[in-house]
Amino acid sequence: MNDIISAASRASTTGNMQLYSIIVTRSQEMKEKLSPFHFNQPMIKSAPIVLTFCADLNRFVKWCEINNAIPGYDNFQSFTAAMLDTTIIAQAFCDEAESRGLGICYLGTTTYNAKDIIDTLALPKRVIPITTITVGYPADIPPQVERLPLEAFVHNEVYCDYDEKMIKSLYSEKESLEANQKFVKENNKETLAQVFTDIRYTKNNNEVFSKKFIDVLKENNFL
Amino acid sequence: MNDIISAASRASTTGNMQLYSIIVTRSQEMKEKLSPFHFNQPMIKSAPIVLTFCADLNRFVKWCEINNAIPGYDNFQSFTAAMLDTTIIAQAFCDEAESRGLGICYLGTTTYNAKDIIDTLALPKRVIPITTITVGYPADIPPQVERLPLEAFVHNEVYCDYDEKMIKSLYSEKESLEANQKFVKENNKETLAQVFTDIRYTKNNNEVFSKKFIDVLKENNFL
Repeated sequence: MNDIISAASRASTTGNMQLYSIIVTRSQEMKEKLSPFHFNQPMIKSAPIVLTFCADLNRFVKWCEINNAIPGYDNFQSFTAAMLDTTIIAQAFCDEAESRGLGICYLGTTTYNAKDIIDTLALPKRVIPITTITVGYPADIPPQVERLPLEAFVHNEVYCDYDEKMIKSLYSEKESLEANQKFVKENNKETLAQVFTDIRYTKNNNEVFSKKFIDVLKENNFL
Repeated sequence: MNDIISAASRASTTGNMQLYSIIVTRSQEMKEKLSPFHFNQPMIKSAPIVLTFCADLNRFVKWCEINNAIPGYDNFQSFTAAMLDTTIIAQAFCDEAESRGLGICYLGTTTYNAKDIIDTLALPKRVIPITTITVGYPADIPPQVERLPLEAFVHNEVYCDYDEKMIKSLYSEKESLEANQKFVKENNKETLAQVFTDIRYTKNNNEVFSKKFIDVLKENNFL
């Protein structure tokens, strides 16, 4: 694990400030505590290691303060830089881990319940959990899920906005996949998009968790 | 380039929504236009390819709308998910590109002048530039710059906060490096930390660019 994290820490970082910390969870007790904040997704308890990647301005600010330097990092731009640094090392970790035969899974729920994760992991002021990765040797190698064709998200020189015909064409393969059609039927919906808007990522949930995360950023003087 | 982007698009993405777009800049004309918004850092004009990675909810919202699904993505949580997706594919791109012998450089200035970049690249509503990467075959392989020791940013089970003695110990190697001592002297400062607070990442600049970026997010209904 140290070798992988060390390699990942070679990834780019804003001004070489390394505005991140990684909390390594191995104990069953801590996994049990974290689990509800990730809506009890089973990976938390079944993976041997859970890593919480945090945007961290605490360490850098402390370094400034003991070096007669007045830090000016209680603002959104500093948080943005730290969030970038944190996500970059998280993905560098994944690429390195996978190249060594490990499997990873991101938990996109980290910012939803950031306050609870802060309390559980004893994160001090100016340290915000951004994403969580579970790691272990994979039981098997599942088939890859679909991705949109490149022309759906690569633009040359300027953004080429989409009309209805383009959207239909770019999403047609995704919509026609058996797994996705099953998904629509099981959820009693008319279209795959409705599975996202009505069930997986609803307006109401997004608004509730937006407010909670904004409150966390405000409490930390980042907003 | 397509092979590398295609491989990078295999990286994890929130709910497989792929909330990103990549704008590829090859023309000298567009590089000239982008250059001032990155404070004329020379890589923009000297690298053969400049990639602007954007958080993109435009495409997904359009897909919802033409599929009789009511999108609820005008909020901060949706932007956060898109920013994560975008940074993850950016770093996956870098790892893949470097594994093929290319060199990369991140430009951390992208969110500073997001509005100008939006105008230049004709980004529609709900598309926010997050980071920029310049790519090319490296002229040489420079020595690696320092990183903090692992114990500076890896915590077991809970966050272990730093006291003055720990900070001094963790940063001592960095501070003692000839290149960093030169940096302090050239800038007429007492400590390396002051180079960051007084010159490189000042409170005033951070606050100005925070306001600008927050305004962009508000104009796009993400805040």
